[in-house]
Amino acid sequence: MSDQALETVSEISALRKLVASRRQQGATIGFVPTMGALHAGHTSLIEAADADCDFVVVSIYVNPTQFGPDEDFERYPRVLEQDLAKCAAAGANLVWTPDTSIMYPDGYSTDVTVKALSRILEGATRTNHFQGVTTIVTKLLLSCLPDIAYFGAKDFQQQAIIRRMCLDLNIPVEINTCPIIRDTDGLALSSRNAYLSAEEREAGLSLSRALRLAEEKVAAGETDIAQIKAAMQQLLNATPLLKLDYATIADPTTLEDISTVQSEMVALIAARVGTTRLIDNCQLAPAATEKT
Amino acid sequence: MSDQALETVSEISALRKLVASRRQQGATIGFVPTMGALHAGHTSLIEAADADCDFVVVSIYVNPTQFGPDEDFERYPRVLEQDLAKCAAAGANLVWTPDTSIMYPDGYSTDVTVKALSRILEGATRTNHFQGVTTIVTKLLLSCLPDIAYFGAKDFQQQAIIRRMCLDLNIPVEINTCPIIRDTDGLALSSRNAYLSAEEREAGLSLSRALRLAEEKVAAGETDIAQIKAAMQQLLNATPLLKLDYATIADPTTLEDISTVQSEMVALIAARVGTTRLIDNCQLAPAATEKT
Repeated sequence: MSDQALETVSEISALRKLVASRRQQGATIGFVPTMGALHAGHTSLIEAADADCDFVVVSIYVNPTQFGPDEDFERYPRVLEQDLAKCAAAGANLVWTPDTSIMYPDGYSTDVTVKALSRILEGATRTNHFQGVTTIVTKLLLSCLPDIAYFGAKDFQQQAIIRRMCLDLNIPVEINTCPIIRDTDGLALSSRNAYLSAEEREAGLSLSRALRLAEEKVAAGETDIAQIKAAMQQLLNATPLLKLDYATIADPTTLEDISTVQSEMVALIAARVGTTRLIDNCQLAPAATEKT
Repeated sequence: MSDQALETVSEISALRKLVASRRQQGATIGFVPTMGALHAGHTSLIEAADADCDFVVVSIYVNPTQFGPDEDFERYPRVLEQDLAKCAAAGANLVWTPDTSIMYPDGYSTDVTVKALSRILEGATRTNHFQGVTTIVTKLLLSCLPDIAYFGAKDFQQQAIIRRMCLDLNIPVEINTCPIIRDTDGLALSSRNAYLSAEEREAGLSLSRALRLAEEKVAAGETDIAQIKAAMQQLLNATPLLKLDYATIADPTTLEDISTVQSEMVALIAARVGTTRLIDNCQLAPAATEKT
């Protein structure tokens, strides 16, 4: 916990200087990379970092390379003043706000790609999305050089890919994945929920309902994975306004579909409601095993 | 300069522990990544690191992913005992010898790619070579976390790509490119020279002769780049046993061919002599400009 005033920097050199100075004083450095438009999901990550670490850096940067040409880069919410207030309240010490001239200077030419994991699930429809994510996250991590970086479980595939990438490239950081934060109606928090009309929001609740259904079935001893998937899909396909992309059960590390019950499993759903793409997930543990 | 005994490690955790301990004592860390089979070119890099830095790490690892399927990975020379003696004599403090189970563990899935620079020159014939190089160099740099890493100018395109990659990914290291070391007959040192017969070696001397010709023409005030290239190519094409791949003059940063004289230029040659591929280069400065 720290009660110092919130600082902000844009340049990487200024960020590094402040982080190095704190590290030299023995501080552990926590890092929460964000695209801004912060909600309670983000602030829970900042609070987790503040609980673990002496100095907490939050980055706010809407990374163009992870948006497809038909996606919402232009209209993605940008509310820096509100974000800074939320960072301060949640315990951040430093907010880093690079711009695109800093992150992708003239002549920029390098990609980081996590092959297998990036082509499935979200990657099957969002071409190049994860390459954009892995490249910017490498850059953010190597600019800040934190001890621990915090990601939300809501973007489950993203955190799995980032874990694989950090392991593969020997990026010297620990990855901490924090639980999904939900509104009282069950909708997983997302900056994109702001796009939903009241009817669309009601439709969006089917994602968390389908996940609860899967949890209940597994808790009740159901071991037929195909049956659990079919139940989720039936609930989702019966929802007006909702167009299901996938509802599946996978291994939490490889993200490969599974056909038989195993000790760790994750149920993953993606659907479009109107023009808004929603995702949600939950980890599942068979009845005999203690849930982690 | 240090006169401590040479240590060797294989595991990344052991490497990091030793480097972190020296850094904590205030040491600057120099790093020379190699594939072993060390010659005076490599030892000049170790000596340069020893002159600049308090603690010098040399890695020896023959990286399979930068060899093509028809290239010489299997027969690439592996002479660890000799290499260790040369490292000690040149001033190395620590030799890191990871193996493939450490560098590419089960499930490994990540590539680093520097797009434009990797497709031209060497990259035009050696598909995926530079992706293998940039991926392993990222891993080596992030495992060791040196202050300065040393590369030879003989692999000119490689050092240009690595500079671009470190800049693009914000890898916190300074890249130091050291001059080509040549045998007395002018042949640029390379571990692959061991493959050459006496006749092939004589043919290989045409590379450095062609570069000297280009230097002489530029020094004499020749400003017609096409004419200089043609002279190099004529000399090389007239050499028995030698099959020219390219002989060109390029911008040292972008590696794009140039057609008019500029203050910094590099002449680059690649040729096959028998089954051995040879490369060489030299920087050129027009007569009016002081050569850097």
